[in-house]
Amino acid sequence: MSLEIVSSNKSFGGWHKRYRHRSATLGCDMVFAIYLPPQIEQGAKLPVLYWLSGLTCSDENFMQKAGAQRLAAELGLVIVAPDTSPRGAEVPGDPDGAWDFGLGAGFYLNATEQPWARHYRMHDYVVEELPALVEANFPVSERRGISGHSMGGHGALVCALRNPGRYLSVSALAPISHPTQCPWGEKAFSRFLGEDRSKWREWDASLLLAEASERLPMLVDQGDRDDFLATQLKPEALQAAAKASGHPLTLRLQPGYDHSYYFIASFIDDHLRHHAAALS
Amino acid sequence: MSLEIVSSNKSFGGWHKRYRHRSATLGCDMVFAIYLPPQIEQGAKLPVLYWLSGLTCSDENFMQKAGAQRLAAELGLVIVAPDTSPRGAEVPGDPDGAWDFGLGAGFYLNATEQPWARHYRMHDYVVEELPALVEANFPVSERRGISGHSMGGHGALVCALRNPGRYLSVSALAPISHPTQCPWGEKAFSRFLGEDRSKWREWDASLLLAEASERLPMLVDQGDRDDFLATQLKPEALQAAAKASGHPLTLRLQPGYDHSYYFIASFIDDHLRHHAAALS
Repeated sequence: MSLEIVSSNKSFGGWHKRYRHRSATLGCDMVFAIYLPPQIEQGAKLPVLYWLSGLTCSDENFMQKAGAQRLAAELGLVIVAPDTSPRGAEVPGDPDGAWDFGLGAGFYLNATEQPWARHYRMHDYVVEELPALVEANFPVSERRGISGHSMGGHGALVCALRNPGRYLSVSALAPISHPTQCPWGEKAFSRFLGEDRSKWREWDASLLLAEASERLPMLVDQGDRDDFLATQLKPEALQAAAKASGHPLTLRLQPGYDHSYYFIASFIDDHLRHHAAALS
Repeated sequence: MSLEIVSSNKSFGGWHKRYRHRSATLGCDMVFAIYLPPQIEQGAKLPVLYWLSGLTCSDENFMQKAGAQRLAAELGLVIVAPDTSPRGAEVPGDPDGAWDFGLGAGFYLNATEQPWARHYRMHDYVVEELPALVEANFPVSERRGISGHSMGGHGALVCALRNPGRYLSVSALAPISHPTQCPWGEKAFSRFLGEDRSKWREWDASLLLAEASERLPMLVDQGDRDDFLATQLKPEALQAAAKASGHPLTLRLQPGYDHSYYFIASFIDDHLRHHAAALS
């Protein structure tokens, strides 16, 4: 597994770098971004926060717009941002060219249906292949946190809930909390997983949370002026599941905030501190 | 002069808003962005920092990528980011469609040559029309600072140097410091101002600085791994002019940094504090 450097920018005394590599899991070339804080040059192995982005994003959106590097540099946190789907000419996208399925919209699951099953295995890529690659090529520890926004918030919650012990911290901003019961999730799951809804359960954070054995504290922020709140995001399902199972969830409804990166940037510091407290 | 709201996002307790308006100076519709920190709702008139962006940018780049809102919210600074040129079907661009002249590349001057003279009057727009509009429509004071990046750094320095008393603070990141002696400036000035180089002098920060009457302290940051440093930016000309005229210039060469927004974000807080100290 070799890495090809795509770009490199000094940032807050550390480095923002982008790499291309061949992904065996996804059967295509992938690009990811990594923020290496200045402490990386002092030899100690640093913890890694994985950030999963939302629909239409690539590895670039978070690194350009969230403003996370300032505090990550202070806290000594490495941040890794993968792409949001497999990419390339050989990867099928939405048949109608829509932005909410396929390319840029992999939903961080392992597809079982054709023609998606060959490439759309973002869960295994994010949970297994990418951390192995990062841990083999950078001076990082195996202390991992995971977070994300919208579709990536769904991804972060599901990756943590499905893999007890793999992450020491988890959080999300405006996650798709109950994808089996919203239009984005129903469209994606019916194609990736087929029409048998019983197979969807294992990719729904609210359903997984109700049965979770691990008690990893969750921080979730949600803007109350988010256009997708009622139809797509449904944090109340996550809250009900946490209450029923006694899971420690801090869900904060942020008045006036929408679904944009202006919302993410406003609260990213709280998330970084949440992760650093568990990872450092 | 009426304002039409384009978008509004809550950001760090304040608001990022975009407005469209008809510009009499430029003879076209223009969009600008404004960050209103949370203190705006407390009634006191706040100072305004004008940010001028670089080649190819619009009002959006700085607001999305610089990460300035966090500290602006803390300091109580309004930030206004105009577009980088006149826009619209009636506005001529580069005859060859290049990105370094015309649309997205107005160079913050008043053109005298045809076909540019009708619309390309970005200096008067930035210095006169836009502040008048902002001061008439928002609870801001007449305490103004100005800053910018690359072509916008040139613009900020020239606007301040040409208009003593109009700004209480000035700074720049990687400015085009001596445009009469670099390819970007020579291309733009020869078209906007004609081939008589004696008319270029009044739009060159290094030449203006040598004769400046006002002693406004200047903060300039420049990355030493900036690909444009030697050919286009030439901060040494600015430094020589400041030394010759005894002007207070703090020029910092930042090791390892390039020309990107990763550089801007890394040092924007220092610039906001520089302005706030003079404006508050």
